[in-house]
Amino acid sequence: MNRVMQRRRITKFRVGAQTGSREDVLAGEEPLEIRLGGSAFTVTMRTPGDDFDLVAGFLVSEGVVWEPGQLPSLRYCAGVDDDGQQTFNVVEAQLRPDVELPDTAMERHVYTSSSCGICGTASIDAVRKSSRFDLTTDTGQIDLGILASLPDRLRTSQKLFDRTGGVHAAGLFTAEGELLCLREDVGRHNAVDKVVGWALRDGMLPLRGTILQVSGRASFELVQKAQLAGIPVLAAVSAPSSLAADLADDAGLTLVGFSRGTSLNCYSHPGRIAA
Amino acid sequence: MNRVMQRRRITKFRVGAQTGSREDVLAGEEPLEIRLGGSAFTVTMRTPGDDFDLVAGFLVSEGVVWEPGQLPSLRYCAGVDDDGQQTFNVVEAQLRPDVELPDTAMERHVYTSSSCGICGTASIDAVRKSSRFDLTTDTGQIDLGILASLPDRLRTSQKLFDRTGGVHAAGLFTAEGELLCLREDVGRHNAVDKVVGWALRDGMLPLRGTILQVSGRASFELVQKAQLAGIPVLAAVSAPSSLAADLADDAGLTLVGFSRGTSLNCYSHPGRIAA
Repeated sequence: MNRVMQRRRITKFRVGAQTGSREDVLAGEEPLEIRLGGSAFTVTMRTPGDDFDLVAGFLVSEGVVWEPGQLPSLRYCAGVDDDGQQTFNVVEAQLRPDVELPDTAMERHVYTSSSCGICGTASIDAVRKSSRFDLTTDTGQIDLGILASLPDRLRTSQKLFDRTGGVHAAGLFTAEGELLCLREDVGRHNAVDKVVGWALRDGMLPLRGTILQVSGRASFELVQKAQLAGIPVLAAVSAPSSLAADLADDAGLTLVGFSRGTSLNCYSHPGRIAA
Repeated sequence: MNRVMQRRRITKFRVGAQTGSREDVLAGEEPLEIRLGGSAFTVTMRTPGDDFDLVAGFLVSEGVVWEPGQLPSLRYCAGVDDDGQQTFNVVEAQLRPDVELPDTAMERHVYTSSSCGICGTASIDAVRKSSRFDLTTDTGQIDLGILASLPDRLRTSQKLFDRTGGVHAAGLFTAEGELLCLREDVGRHNAVDKVVGWALRDGMLPLRGTILQVSGRASFELVQKAQLAGIPVLAAVSAPSSLAADLADDAGLTLVGFSRGTSLNCYSHPGRIAA
């Protein structure tokens, strides 16, 4: 076992049968502290692994970086716990000097002005971040059969889910259906950040012509993450929210939901899908 | 339609069939700004409705309040948007003068000290909040048959899910299986906060002898919310994470996962379940 999965003895109850004890495997969850320019920025709960990708993707999603040179260094903090062990739960990110440190008040979704932050704005304007990448110029077509097959392909590639039944997945695919990167995490946002961070560090942003397939629902925030990474198509196995569809419409992103092998619903910009 | 559900025209694709257009219903998602003592504290994405319960439950989950008198007033901000409409997306909470305003740096999970916040602490200590309520003194038994039946009862009571297929649910039940409160939301944490806030405002905390049944997985944060509301049993339809099980163990909470009608797994304190 490792920190990605943990064994645990559990009690198995079955109505009308003997209660038993057995060993089970649980998905790992630990806090990760992200430090920027020497001071703590945020703490997120995540499944350990691909931590540098997670931090890089988080910074893309926050609109802080969009090319690898803006993030010259990522390293684990050298501190140790009371037992003298390095926890690998603190990552220090160094930004290129010309990169603007995020406005921490805004980044923490806290409005520090004395006026009401979101009374005067439409819902979508109150929370959206601006993207460097214009999705409307990304006009490549995606074959319906390939698009509809991605949830199955994602599921069969999920190693952690097979063992634990308890993690979200995000997979980045080419228009031809080739899997570029798959990440699993107890947090749905983290799985997407890990994929996006992997792509940033490889110099692949904007991710033109790609499809991001996720295991769960499509929320506003997932649509925003796809937009900031320049991904033109976001497909979810389950339902999108109203604001997810609104943002996708605005951003020129093709939003797909209820993708189930042979059929799918499209909530915005269906023109990219070739039936 | 209303702000809880929104109609939208979508494109329905089916492999080998004609592409069609039809009307669909999506779960509403809008930002809610929570203001404390006159200044903005946080913004959360939520399904509109039961906003005062959401704010109250959020404050319980943050360890700020635990009895209704500590929260004498909740009201919508009177501000309007550019069209002169009240958005109902800003709630102002007034705390009793003796209630300590949360340490915002900590509450936002940001450590402002110059040392590494979580290098020197075990994972669970780095993120847990202390609870006023001792679950270990709550020794009531819960019948296995009733406990295993709750996911079905939750599902059949979900009105928003029936229409949208896209929301999480949290239901509070008595040990006899009576449903006390059910809330649905695009955010899983919000559904739980709405239930807890409803209970706080009714003067019901700690929620001794109750069961909180949730539709998805059990994360560390959901276990913490249950603990801070004094709920002794948290049952999830899907898997818990490792840290959720660790905290439940520590807190004296009975954590149930993979609850599927006739069987379930128990990850901590199985003594409360009567087979």
